[in-house]
Amino acid sequence: MQHGGDLTTAMAVHGGTREAWLDLSTGINPFAWPVPGTLRPEAWTSLPTQGALDRLIAAARGAYHVPDDVAIVAAPGTQSIIQWLPQLAPEGPVAVVQPTYAEHALAWRRAGHTVIASSPETPLPDAARHLVVVNPNNPDGHLFERERLARLAADVATRGGWLVIDESFIDVVPDASAAALCRDLPLLILRSFGKFFGLAGLRLGFLLARPDIAAQLAEALGPWSVAGPALEIGAAALLDDVYARTMREHLVREAAELDGLLQRAGLDVVGGTTLYRLVRHPLARHLHAHLACHHIWVRRFDWNDSLLRFGLPPDDQARLRLGAALADGLAAAHVGDHGTRTG
Amino acid sequence: MQHGGDLTTAMAVHGGTREAWLDLSTGINPFAWPVPGTLRPEAWTSLPTQGALDRLIAAARGAYHVPDDVAIVAAPGTQSIIQWLPQLAPEGPVAVVQPTYAEHALAWRRAGHTVIASSPETPLPDAARHLVVVNPNNPDGHLFERERLARLAADVATRGGWLVIDESFIDVVPDASAAALCRDLPLLILRSFGKFFGLAGLRLGFLLARPDIAAQLAEALGPWSVAGPALEIGAAALLDDVYARTMREHLVREAAELDGLLQRAGLDVVGGTTLYRLVRHPLARHLHAHLACHHIWVRRFDWNDSLLRFGLPPDDQARLRLGAALADGLAAAHVGDHGTRTG
Repeated sequence: MQHGGDLTTAMAVHGGTREAWLDLSTGINPFAWPVPGTLRPEAWTSLPTQGALDRLIAAARGAYHVPDDVAIVAAPGTQSIIQWLPQLAPEGPVAVVQPTYAEHALAWRRAGHTVIASSPETPLPDAARHLVVVNPNNPDGHLFERERLARLAADVATRGGWLVIDESFIDVVPDASAAALCRDLPLLILRSFGKFFGLAGLRLGFLLARPDIAAQLAEALGPWSVAGPALEIGAAALLDDVYARTMREHLVREAAELDGLLQRAGLDVVGGTTLYRLVRHPLARHLHAHLACHHIWVRRFDWNDSLLRFGLPPDDQARLRLGAALADGLAAAHVGDHGTRTG
Repeated sequence: MQHGGDLTTAMAVHGGTREAWLDLSTGINPFAWPVPGTLRPEAWTSLPTQGALDRLIAAARGAYHVPDDVAIVAAPGTQSIIQWLPQLAPEGPVAVVQPTYAEHALAWRRAGHTVIASSPETPLPDAARHLVVVNPNNPDGHLFERERLARLAADVATRGGWLVIDESFIDVVPDASAAALCRDLPLLILRSFGKFFGLAGLRLGFLLARPDIAAQLAEALGPWSVAGPALEIGAAALLDDVYARTMREHLVREAAELDGLLQRAGLDVVGGTTLYRLVRHPLARHLHAHLACHHIWVRRFDWNDSLLRFGLPPDDQARLRLGAALADGLAAAHVGDHGTRTG
């Protein structure tokens, strides 16, 4: 399984210290919420308490606008929820709208479900009992309308299935969240804390769902699943409205700057969210290798040779470095390309 | 499910701020390994890396004396391993040596296995395919000899089952660990980081097992299951031989002091480890309530009215406070007891 966000392989092949690399391989916000210098020592030493968990859930309820009659379960990362859900779901085939984050299909298959690859146009084939949608989608940013999701959830409900909506990147377009629909439908919404707040090392994610479904995940995760520091930092960050509001606007500007840079280099921006941009270029594979030689790590995809995903550069220096490497790489590629054709 | 370590309920009934309570309800070391004041910011911001995970596993291998051909899987707390193992184990009944930490039986039952309560004398009834042993046991401290565990693992192997040994408290008697037996046998050893190092909020635990078994848990937990700060702090603490050696000796002295205090109060110390002491008294229930009124929280058990478990008091002041409350409580109990009998 290939993932963004781990330079270990890249460093093994191309050398360079972790600090020397510019890691643009993830959709994690590089402008992180500032973690306080000191935490209460009990966050480390004591078992996480029910009180601290309650404060986190209350903060998430406010930040995500979750109605009171929808339950929230905290987990050590959205990934841990992805691992458990297929174990808890009723037996039956699952449709996963493709292309998308590969771990969903993997986890459902591992739990014994047949996985059907579907498309945004016809997301729910007749044979499927369950449906998984990443919204907005990673990597192309495709966004389902809430009305469409409501209809899909109702369809899935008649089949006795679940509609899982992975809203890991929805913080940048919060009005698109389907949270309010969970009340009456077999809808399971995954929210990621670490991506928008830039704190992926913390490991914190949430499930929003009907109380009877949420209880199943809570029982599966067991007590003390989220670390004390994550409860504390998560609650404080989720209460910080000012950060969320200004960061959303900041990300719009940063994504636009990145688009300009990519387009000037001759790349087509074909999708994404303000946390990552998807580009198409016939020489994407070549460009990926070229950037790696310059110790810039971006995301490529096994299923499409002409796509690359770029996370946001953290500052002007990173942007300059990326722009120079892209210009250089594409110039070299075109020469090489030309050379091959005539040689 | 009743647990030690969460004062939320106690505070709801008896009042008092968290700081005002003396929490002796857990077996977590009150003399915690000192977490450094500052962590690398990337521990919070980046996805946990393979390199950081490798360093943690190497540190655990050294600290726990795990042979090279036994695999180690890190998890966000031993509890998360307890939650997953029954999902991964082959179908069939499991024997759980009783009395012990209740979460094992709960998790196996939840995953659909029949749970058979067994005893240290006859741990593996004929009907069982799997066996779970907590060693040393919580709360009574019972310790199985390694030779006996090897025979039990061999028996379980002939049944196509697993022997799960929860060594959450074995750091205080490290030579008793069965780690070396994992090589050839279907033996799954759970190690807890947080109890001995006094950092239960960190959420870190390990499975030691044959590589084929370990791979199943690693796949179930998925990527990035342990938080970045836990990888970093865990590795540093596990490399700190001096802390481990001196802490083991320190805990022996602390446990002896606690025993003296409990015995002077008229309580029988009937078991435990140097991280917690189990006492028997006919008025244990009364005493538990009395201590709670004094905002001292100890562990009682649903299955036995005459047992209480005491964690280590953190300092002289706590010891004085406990001693006074015990003396007072038992004096009152005897008067009350006498009164009832004659009234």
